[in-house]
Amino acid sequence: MSSPSTSVLKGKTVLPADKIQQIGLLYAVNDKYGGVMVDMKEPMDSHIYVPLLRASISQWRQQGKKGVWIKLPIQLANLVEPTVKEGFRYHHAESDYLMLVHWIPDSPDALPANASHIVGIGAFVMNNKREVLVVKEKHGYFEGKDVWKFPTGVVNQGEDICTAAIREVKEETGIDTEFMEILAFRQTHKQFLGKSDLFFVCMLRPLSFDITKQDSEIKAAQWIPIDEYVNQTYNREHKSFEYIARICSTKSQGSYGGFSAVRPSSGKQNYLYFNGQDFKP
Amino acid sequence: MSSPSTSVLKGKTVLPADKIQQIGLLYAVNDKYGGVMVDMKEPMDSHIYVPLLRASISQWRQQGKKGVWIKLPIQLANLVEPTVKEGFRYHHAESDYLMLVHWIPDSPDALPANASHIVGIGAFVMNNKREVLVVKEKHGYFEGKDVWKFPTGVVNQGEDICTAAIREVKEETGIDTEFMEILAFRQTHKQFLGKSDLFFVCMLRPLSFDITKQDSEIKAAQWIPIDEYVNQTYNREHKSFEYIARICSTKSQGSYGGFSAVRPSSGKQNYLYFNGQDFKP
Repeated sequence: MSSPSTSVLKGKTVLPADKIQQIGLLYAVNDKYGGVMVDMKEPMDSHIYVPLLRASISQWRQQGKKGVWIKLPIQLANLVEPTVKEGFRYHHAESDYLMLVHWIPDSPDALPANASHIVGIGAFVMNNKREVLVVKEKHGYFEGKDVWKFPTGVVNQGEDICTAAIREVKEETGIDTEFMEILAFRQTHKQFLGKSDLFFVCMLRPLSFDITKQDSEIKAAQWIPIDEYVNQTYNREHKSFEYIARICSTKSQGSYGGFSAVRPSSGKQNYLYFNGQDFKP
Repeated sequence: MSSPSTSVLKGKTVLPADKIQQIGLLYAVNDKYGGVMVDMKEPMDSHIYVPLLRASISQWRQQGKKGVWIKLPIQLANLVEPTVKEGFRYHHAESDYLMLVHWIPDSPDALPANASHIVGIGAFVMNNKREVLVVKEKHGYFEGKDVWKFPTGVVNQGEDICTAAIREVKEETGIDTEFMEILAFRQTHKQFLGKSDLFFVCMLRPLSFDITKQDSEIKAAQWIPIDEYVNQTYNREHKSFEYIARICSTKSQGSYGGFSAVRPSSGKQNYLYFNGQDFKP
């Protein structure tokens, strides 16, 4: 769809022929689940949009369509209120668009869920002197707390967990690493705006050793003996930190099996994580 | 905030005193990160809202506030376009509200990420005759494919992975279970509308054995020998399915260490998942 005129598809409909000519329909693409998706791209006045939407829904209902998706870029915020007034609800939003949905049949709404989890990583990086790479953060929860912590960060949409861990270590400390294993993960709820959170503790092998800390977020970064890290007061007072620290310590002694990352199909960008000591594909 | 009048806070401001009396400010709550959150609840005309929003932003700027969050329930869809016009972008949406954000300082936007991942589970349930609980689905990807698969489902926002696995098995087959371990997980991307997906393979122990299948989604449900499950043509042709099936088979012989679920603090609703064979807290 490249302009308001091409966005109007004068296709099959149950409306009288003269009405079709007057109104037209919104351009929609069928999805795999018996629904349709309208990807609005060009500016449109709501007085033109609303009759198009109504005629389109009438046709989709006749065709037995189920879910209707309307993607409105933020530039078309003028169409949000009219779409809601026609019975749509919000599904999800990103910075630059809002997705609205409407379930046509009388059956229960079978539309898929919105993303529910924020995913983060913590990186356990130890050199061959049994020193771990730790940072103190300038902002956020640990601001002002005198706690050495692993480099941490958010896994971006579309990013592999193992890749995100390498990226965060490099960004915060300048150290190059290789991904080894996921040692543990934690699920928490209502962390931010009601969303849930998955935090993966990743073990990485350092490939370089000279620290160049990131100035904007990191107050200090250095290698410290693993026992000094584990025995910090903060870790002793916070059970999930204590467990994670002790799991890392157990791993450092070679007696812990975490999950390795394997790509089952060479072509696809999917990683499967499993206990690679106990199962060799 | 319970009405338009109480939503107007005539607080500290740099505007002239007479102007404050005329305009007022939006009611906002400070967040932990130097920002403010406006939770709009009552209907408001955009001609009243826009001057309030402008005066509020002016004050927040003077106060050195950073991120501004405006939560608009879907009933207030009329305020979406005016908010966007004042420089806000979308952050995220749920069925019944849209969250907009604006970063006031000149520094780079440090607002937290939107949820990026949909989380799912697959349930490996084996009885003491080495039979696994499997289903055929009526709809979706496996519709029409003659494949026995584990019960699967989406982990809801706020729901623990181990709880979701028990719930899905009960819903689809009527079987009661106890959570044992996570055997593996898979991360995939662009599964739905560009979001990423984390799928956890959970081992559960059956506590009941008589199947009552759910009619709306499930075509068939039964116990079949584990080797019959593993050796299905579909699993042999799809590497990630093959690996998962073989991991489950390895586990069924007692020689595989998955991740157990432990609550580090008795009061908190957080689960830590780790190799419970190799690390005993």
